[in-house]
Amino acid sequence: MPRPFDPRCPIARSLDIVGERWTLLILRDLAILGPRRFQDFQRRLAGISPNTLSARLKTLEDAGIVTRSFYETHPPRAEYRLTDKGEALRPVLKALREWGDRYAPARRA
Amino acid sequence: MPRPFDPRCPIARSLDIVGERWTLLILRDLAILGPRRFQDFQRRLAGISPNTLSARLKTLEDAGIVTRSFYETHPPRAEYRLTDKGEALRPVLKALREWGDRYAPARRA
Repeated sequence: MPRPFDPRCPIARSLDIVGERWTLLILRDLAILGPRRFQDFQRRLAGISPNTLSARLKTLEDAGIVTRSFYETHPPRAEYRLTDKGEALRPVLKALREWGDRYAPARRA
Repeated sequence: MPRPFDPRCPIARSLDIVGERWTLLILRDLAILGPRRFQDFQRRLAGISPNTLSARLKTLEDAGIVTRSFYETHPPRAEYRLTDKGEALRPVLKALREWGDRYAPARRA
């Protein structure tokens, strides 16, 4: 992925890590619903491909925003949860929610 | 662009409009630097193609987040500025800035 952003700008540095819609929706699920398994994300994030989900989770894990732990060994089952660094993104999600509530109303079918 | 998001979720609805890195960087420039011309964005957003910039500005204009006005007629020169709906996105930018300041420090060269 190209990373053309100004490294001196903290907004750009944040977006370099979390500035992608699926990533922010993954973080939304973790913030609202708590620890999740891979298939939990898949169920909620209709339209995400397994490869994309896998890549986004890896990026978040590498960035220290999410941890993966195994809660079963036979067969191995992993769950993802927010780290403190990930919890610290809640204000971003809150600001997006408040703006959406006010300025992007749900359209009636 | 695919729009697979749950329309009942205000975070998803916000991201459907502004959930793209260039879009948020365009909004950053408008929020911090005030009214901008097309070439001002190009200069600051190193790496953005004219087509992408044009498309993002059009999306923001269509969404009522940005207005375009002409400040000269011969030749016509337009500038972009935030509407009230766009100003209301400042908390999103602020949250991204604060997170970036704390958790995504600038790397030394």
